[in-house]
Amino acid sequence: MLGPQVWSSVRQGLSRGLSRNVRGWASGEGKKVDIAGIYPPVTTPFTATAEVDYGKLEENLHKLGTLPFRGFVVQGSNGEFPFLTSSERLEVVSRVRQTMPKDRLLLAGSGCESTQATVEMTVSMAQVGADAAMVVTPCYYRGRMSSAALIHHYTKVADLSPIPVVLYSVPANTGLDLPVDAVVTLSQHPNILGMKDSGGDVTRIGLIVHKTRKQDFQVLAGSAGFLMASYALGAVGGVCALANVLGAQVCQLERLCLTGQWEDAQKLQHRLIEPNTAVTRRFGIPGLKKTMDWFGYYGGPCRAPLQELSPAEEEALRMDFTSNGWL
Amino acid sequence: MLGPQVWSSVRQGLSRGLSRNVRGWASGEGKKVDIAGIYPPVTTPFTATAEVDYGKLEENLHKLGTLPFRGFVVQGSNGEFPFLTSSERLEVVSRVRQTMPKDRLLLAGSGCESTQATVEMTVSMAQVGADAAMVVTPCYYRGRMSSAALIHHYTKVADLSPIPVVLYSVPANTGLDLPVDAVVTLSQHPNILGMKDSGGDVTRIGLIVHKTRKQDFQVLAGSAGFLMASYALGAVGGVCALANVLGAQVCQLERLCLTGQWEDAQKLQHRLIEPNTAVTRRFGIPGLKKTMDWFGYYGGPCRAPLQELSPAEEEALRMDFTSNGWL
Amino acid sequence: MLGPQVWSSVRQGLSRGLSRNVRGWASGEGKKVDIAGIYPPVTTPFTATAEVDYGKLEENLHKLGTLPFRGFVVQGSNGEFPFLTSSERLEVVSRVRQTMPKDRLLLAGSGCESTQATVEMTVSMAQVGADAAMVVTPCYYRGRMSSAALIHHYTKVADLSPIPVVLYSVPANTGLDLPVDAVVTLSQHPNILGMKDSGGDVTRIGLIVHKTRKQDFQVLAGSAGFLMASYALGAVGGVCALANVLGAQVCQLERLCLTGQWEDAQKLQHRLIEPNTAVTRRFGIPGLKKTMDWFGYYGGPCRAPLQELSPAEEEALRMDFTSNGWL
Amino acid sequence: MLGPQVWSSVRQGLSRGLSRNVRGWASGEGKKVDIAGIYPPVTTPFTATAEVDYGKLEENLHKLGTLPFRGFVVQGSNGEFPFLTSSERLEVVSRVRQTMPKDRLLLAGSGCESTQATVEMTVSMAQVGADAAMVVTPCYYRGRMSSAALIHHYTKVADLSPIPVVLYSVPANTGLDLPVDAVVTLSQHPNILGMKDSGGDVTRIGLIVHKTRKQDFQVLAGSAGFLMASYALGAVGGVCALANVLGAQVCQLERLCLTGQWEDAQKLQHRLIEPNTAVTRRFGIPGLKKTMDWFGYYGGPCRAPLQELSPAEEEALRMDFTSNGWL
Repeated sequence: MLGPQVWSSVRQGLSRGLSRNVRGWASGEGKKVDIAGIYPPVTTPFTATAEVDYGKLEENLHKLGTLPFRGFVVQGSNGEFPFLTSSERLEVVSRVRQTMPKDRLLLAGSGCESTQATVEMTVSMAQVGADAAMVVTPCYYRGRMSSAALIHHYTKVADLSPIPVVLYSVPANTGLDLPVDAVVTLSQHPNILGMKDSGGDVTRIGLIVHKTRKQDFQVLAGSAGFLMASYALGAVGGVCALANVLGAQVCQLERLCLTGQWEDAQKLQHRLIEPNTAVTRRFGIPGLKKTMDWFGYYGGPCRAPLQELSPAEEEALRMDFTSNGWL
Repeated sequence: MLGPQVWSSVRQGLSRGLSRNVRGWASGEGKKVDIAGIYPPVTTPFTATAEVDYGKLEENLHKLGTLPFRGFVVQGSNGEFPFLTSSERLEVVSRVRQTMPKDRLLLAGSGCESTQATVEMTVSMAQVGADAAMVVTPCYYRGRMSSAALIHHYTKVADLSPIPVVLYSVPANTGLDLPVDAVVTLSQHPNILGMKDSGGDVTRIGLIVHKTRKQDFQVLAGSAGFLMASYALGAVGGVCALANVLGAQVCQLERLCLTGQWEDAQKLQHRLIEPNTAVTRRFGIPGLKKTMDWFGYYGGPCRAPLQELSPAEEEALRMDFTSNGWL
Repeated sequence: MLGPQVWSSVRQGLSRGLSRNVRGWASGEGKKVDIAGIYPPVTTPFTATAEVDYGKLEENLHKLGTLPFRGFVVQGSNGEFPFLTSSERLEVVSRVRQTMPKDRLLLAGSGCESTQATVEMTVSMAQVGADAAMVVTPCYYRGRMSSAALIHHYTKVADLSPIPVVLYSVPANTGLDLPVDAVVTLSQHPNILGMKDSGGDVTRIGLIVHKTRKQDFQVLAGSAGFLMASYALGAVGGVCALANVLGAQVCQLERLCLTGQWEDAQKLQHRLIEPNTAVTRRFGIPGLKKTMDWFGYYGGPCRAPLQELSPAEEEALRMDFTSNGWL
Repeated sequence: MLGPQVWSSVRQGLSRGLSRNVRGWASGEGKKVDIAGIYPPVTTPFTATAEVDYGKLEENLHKLGTLPFRGFVVQGSNGEFPFLTSSERLEVVSRVRQTMPKDRLLLAGSGCESTQATVEMTVSMAQVGADAAMVVTPCYYRGRMSSAALIHHYTKVADLSPIPVVLYSVPANTGLDLPVDAVVTLSQHPNILGMKDSGGDVTRIGLIVHKTRKQDFQVLAGSAGFLMASYALGAVGGVCALANVLGAQVCQLERLCLTGQWEDAQKLQHRLIEPNTAVTRRFGIPGLKKTMDWFGYYGGPCRAPLQELSPAEEEALRMDFTSNGWL
């Protein structure tokens, strides 16, 4: 396994046949920040009394920091952000900023239901050190979240944000797919970098890449289950819950895709599908945290109303890892 | 149209063939508060700069207070609660408490995503004068919101709440139906009064009434579109967005149902279906607020990302009222 | 329990507060056939080798014929019509015609995927004695089944059918709701009598009754679970799988609704919800046929690929009847 | 563009990095037929009076036969099979057999709702010359189509079929996804070759390939929109409506994938997504047939209830081709 430093140069040195141009990290005039790469969406550790455990957060980050990730997503869906107070959200991001290696990116989830609250949270996230804001679609009034409403929302946020914005569509949680036409319109905004798409429809991902090809718009797959397919279609990376436990393997899959070793990539991708489903759709964050405990990280409890896995669920979770050779 | 006072005695004096026993408002030992009746879920007025307009809120309440409502729901979905800060949520409830007639009930929406935050908000709602807390299902992690998780959540909230709790299921917003088996279990909790069901499946409403018949569990229809059918199946009232604009008519429908005038009830119900759909599913809160402007209340703008209706939508909205003889 | 003869005069003599005008059975010029009443959708009995068992069909009909049904639906979804050949479909209808009491209506399912095949089957159904054709929405190409396409389909069928047509919408099987605007347009066709709506959305049923009130358009509830609510909203009857086993009770529910005994109706309706769900959505035709065996009818096996219930399913099915006092 | 002959040797000579072993067409003992490659699902041409136009069918096949397809799918969803009589279904297959080049495969859709009818149709399809039967999931009773029921159905069909069977899952039409566990079980049947999956979930396709890797089980993508991603995950070909109009391009995409030219593949795939959606989900068979008219094939009318495109739809359809450089 390559170390992070070497990895970084590999990543930038590669001809990157299937992805778009790689740009330097420091964005110059007109250049957008390059977000290509793999990110674990870090979980928020809690104590037995459901307080945020910042010590365990730092321990997890120290371990994750040894892997060749492009950066970290903080306050994504796996961060239990809807269960945190505003000040907890900011404190967690602040701690991650202080703890994580300096050469990585910090993408902070700053989405709220109202446009105004999202703007304020985004500004605050910038102040505590986020490199970019990942903004989930508002969803409670999904029946009225037309393309026009979403374009208005994201434009306002991007206009007022001191840091670049990444769109975030996660229909399993929001019941809402950010429409392709809205994405295409928003891709033209100078302060919108790209998108994290967790829906799993790679035809859609391909279409988004295709229709934004004249913009500098970068698509990240929102899950390791369709990471290889997303690379094939033109995505430049992934935000993968599974990278919290099989981080080296997800980065290895990235490398195989970027270097055109598609046969080996396929074999590895195949072995990651069931574990990935297990820590996402099937058993959710309780499953992810339980698995983190197995893999030497601190998982711990979720905040209520999320419940611990039942013994039968835990057994099924374990099987999804053992049957693919990971445990 | 009867005045509120007369109405109250009518309501209590009726034999109430189709509903369960009516109890006095002051709950004695072992008796649960009677929540039977009609409630408008009040909207939150905003100024042109999107500040809460407490003056307009009070004006609306003065007008609504002349109608024979059982009470008011504050911070329901129509109150744009996801767009309010915690302090705004409490201040709105506090103002409504001070403004509304003393003999009515104030049901305050106190649901948050985490159990802990919901408990805290519920306690605060009690402190600012809510008679009961209406608690929406947490939904962001709906894939893990099993019956067990929801039972745990509501039990905790009800255990720790100083005021009674009303369950609130609104799948159009949450993507989640509170399962019947969870409702039946929760109906046995001494501090859970009943449920507001906005799903529109009256078979389900009938089943809930049937399976909780040994408990003192009261079901409110969550919309005027299926209000009459819900009365037929054993619901005791409704929380109806439409009551913000056609309040007298919705109360008239209640009276027709309670006094067994089913033919007239049917005719009135028929004429309310399209207007009701228009201010709920079809055009949402922007449609409701626009209609309020037409009917002499203050509607005004929504907070972003909710958008104003387009001229074509506004025309269609108007047609849904004119074609049924309401405008 | 009243006998069929008495029932018929009761049905016609009632003031029928909640339904539309009752018309004589023999349709004169301009008058549409009155289809008000309860219908069991008869099942198709099979032998152990999966042949149609016409003898058992006749036995079932003799028993069902003693109940005060308005008529029989043959080749509805419960008749396993997609598993029958064209000649079997016709032979079953022919046998039912010969066996059933002369004073009842025979509604025959004649829907096919293509308009042409539906026309031909409808004509054939008329020839073997159907009084009206119940035509399910075509559904395989549901993505293209716009209102315009469905209006075209049904208009063609109604134009060419020698017998009146009843629209049939059953989204649980077809994945398609016949849109309200299409129903309203089609209600004006002189050879379209009404509609069987199995979707369970009584707001929709109310709206259809309301918007077709100037036509002679009759709505039948497609399931016993929402029968009372449908009467309340203006439906004139029901086609109820449950009537194959609890026929007297379903007719009793009809009588209570028609005579305005809503309290008793509610109590009876409540006790029918779980048994109804059990023989429809929950356990399907295998559940219905198993229950028929318990209630003195011939249920027998389904054709493959429908499978027998597992012992656990059978136990749950039984519980849905025993817990409501029916077994 | 390579001719078919050359293509065939290219196809067989390739190292086929991403697909499984290529086997000779003539299946020996224990060897399953190799179905790897691209297939157009041929449409059924109709005259202005809605008769099958066998002459036009033959003309289309002569043109399609010049392209390097592995074979033809007849009576897939695009063949309007639900609108054909049994004898038309067989006659169409028979004509295709006689007309198409001898060295190609003929996969005939033989699915019916009942197991028995499917067996009979499959046997008949073999008699008129089908090389394999493509069997769609029965779906009208989808609520009871458990894995057990589907395994039973397909096992029976495969046991009794004289030709190999290909599973066919097309949720857009059937509302039903053949469950992965059922596929895995069925992959062990000696007379089941593989599967056509039209659902578009490539994570699922990858999982199926992974979990059937010890069987000789071949997966075909059911649409050109996710063809490249499917190859990346281990599919061996595709049945693509779009191949009826852009056949050379779809075969070119196959070649690019098989020869590892992923960059060019991605560019071509991108340009095919919108045209593919246009002739499938967006405008259905009427869209496909209209496009065939533009590309020198005979499209012609569909059988009712499928309607012609409106002028606005036709314009949008054209735009999906012109904006990608195909018209």
